[in-house]
Amino acid sequence: MPKKIGSKTLLLTSSPSIIGYAAVGAKKEKQGPLADYFDYLSEDSSFGEKTWEKAETLMQKKAIELALQKCSVQKTDVDFLFAGDLLNQCIGSAYASRDMAMPFFGLYGACSTMSESLCLAAMFVDGQLANRCVAATSSHFCSAERQFRFPLEYGGQRTPTSQWTVTGSGACVVAPSKQAPYLRAVTVGTVADLGITDINNMGAAMAPAAAQTLCQFFSDTSTRPEDYDLILTGDLGFVGSRLLERMMQAEGYPMAKLHNDCGLMIYDRVKQDVHAGGSGCGCAASVLCSFILPQIACQRLKNVLFMATGALMSPTSNQQGESIPGIAHLLHISAFPNEKEAK
Amino acid sequence: MPKKIGSKTLLLTSSPSIIGYAAVGAKKEKQGPLADYFDYLSEDSSFGEKTWEKAETLMQKKAIELALQKCSVQKTDVDFLFAGDLLNQCIGSAYASRDMAMPFFGLYGACSTMSESLCLAAMFVDGQLANRCVAATSSHFCSAERQFRFPLEYGGQRTPTSQWTVTGSGACVVAPSKQAPYLRAVTVGTVADLGITDINNMGAAMAPAAAQTLCQFFSDTSTRPEDYDLILTGDLGFVGSRLLERMMQAEGYPMAKLHNDCGLMIYDRVKQDVHAGGSGCGCAASVLCSFILPQIACQRLKNVLFMATGALMSPTSNQQGESIPGIAHLLHISAFPNEKEAK
Repeated sequence: MPKKIGSKTLLLTSSPSIIGYAAVGAKKEKQGPLADYFDYLSEDSSFGEKTWEKAETLMQKKAIELALQKCSVQKTDVDFLFAGDLLNQCIGSAYASRDMAMPFFGLYGACSTMSESLCLAAMFVDGQLANRCVAATSSHFCSAERQFRFPLEYGGQRTPTSQWTVTGSGACVVAPSKQAPYLRAVTVGTVADLGITDINNMGAAMAPAAAQTLCQFFSDTSTRPEDYDLILTGDLGFVGSRLLERMMQAEGYPMAKLHNDCGLMIYDRVKQDVHAGGSGCGCAASVLCSFILPQIACQRLKNVLFMATGALMSPTSNQQGESIPGIAHLLHISAFPNEKEAK
Repeated sequence: MPKKIGSKTLLLTSSPSIIGYAAVGAKKEKQGPLADYFDYLSEDSSFGEKTWEKAETLMQKKAIELALQKCSVQKTDVDFLFAGDLLNQCIGSAYASRDMAMPFFGLYGACSTMSESLCLAAMFVDGQLANRCVAATSSHFCSAERQFRFPLEYGGQRTPTSQWTVTGSGACVVAPSKQAPYLRAVTVGTVADLGITDINNMGAAMAPAAAQTLCQFFSDTSTRPEDYDLILTGDLGFVGSRLLERMMQAEGYPMAKLHNDCGLMIYDRVKQDVHAGGSGCGCAASVLCSFILPQIACQRLKNVLFMATGALMSPTSNQQGESIPGIAHLLHISAFPNEKEAK
């Protein structure tokens, strides 16, 4: 049963577990430093499909199926699937869920979707609304580029602040269990918008939301950055990460040494020419499910704050001169179900 | 605390109340038969804004603010806002939520969004994950037409099976209370796809999902259509409604006399030239929040099954030859908190 502390944070008193998780990527992710940790990497970014959108659907299905396999849960035993993606009308998830036959809540949280879906799954299990939930998301470089920016064939030049959409997917199975990683608390974000309008600088647009949610969590829980091993943001990239660290310093929570960003981990920024880093829903999802969760499971990481951030604009709103609203949802993921066992 | 019955239905044992609700529409809705029941109708479909998208945002904000006013709840007292819409990247809701400062879960359920958001709000309150939740959605004829079909200026001819996207929004405030309407049970839908590919016949694409969820609910609860005063679908329109009734008849649940569809109620199909009826997230939302909920509150309607349906395709998936997956989420909304008080 969840217990509210402070004004916006919920402690998940039953500490639901992530009993299964899987990460899927493609060629560029295979060339990156985290390749060894992925469950499945396709040399072919089209995954054998005729369109990029179908490739993304297949990729998300693969991640969900692998996550279920790894914890021996049948599709029919899943109470709810929470999933979303970046594509118009979230077709990546809609078509993936078509073959899953699970009760389905479609989400749109832009790049915050891994946090959003995992928050809902964790809250549902802790609130006894469900026994087993799946949280999943995906993004695909090729489907995102042509939808948000230019057709790939155009070969447009990228600005230094731009990021590279990860072709990847991650899925988590959440259930009551006595195995790490445990989901201990959530802070659901509110929209923050400081007026950034540059769609090639998403990191800057999302950093204020990240700072807001993080400060809220520290204030609600009376904890500080140094109480955690790692504060992991989704895809702020190089520009957004430095901004977040400076904002947190100004708020009295210096955290630069404890902070990392999935967008800075998944690629080698210099060798792989990705400018400010990786981005997309699949960035946070695949880094969490490949590299982070196993380290929490084996207690190498004991307490992680995972916070994927989303930029809730569209090409249309941008063309209409609107600024970019950001959102960030936070989860405390731990190697221990409670403080007592941590000692 | 929710209690699972059958395989996919949750009884909400605390019977959360819809303590506030409001419906907003525009010119065509003002000319329709339900006009008198709306809380706010704008003669100007642009709501004084420069773009249709900004008009939709304003409309959704208006619905949420009116719903909160009507039950004297402050924005700061809302634990979670669940909202989504039809626009790419759900910008109607994202920008509406920017000024709300409420923890925000963005949803994408196409035209099922009023059911999806209300299911989540009801489950959160019943599972004690929240004290007060807002569920909202919207659609706008002009923003939808140009995104899904043709620019308005093109003046394309509409097929007989096509529906007219409602310019409207509805919002509900859900909280524990001892006042009708009560939320008694939910059945969250799974995707159903019988292979329909005609995007001008959404009703036919969504009817199988509606039949599937409805049969599931009757089977799980051991009830029958005649146990309810009204079975209300979202926007199946004329074609989809007749299909659903025939499918239910074939399943042994004849219900044509008890069934109505928001898409058939909001406009005068003959006089207003809307072909197969109204559609869009705002259709089910505004009909529920204008015409239906007050009748449940005063016990004129005692037990209503509300089920908005969604077609989870996009113009891209359609152009790529994909069929249209449908989904339907069901809520049992009642004038009584339990069977005992109903007698």
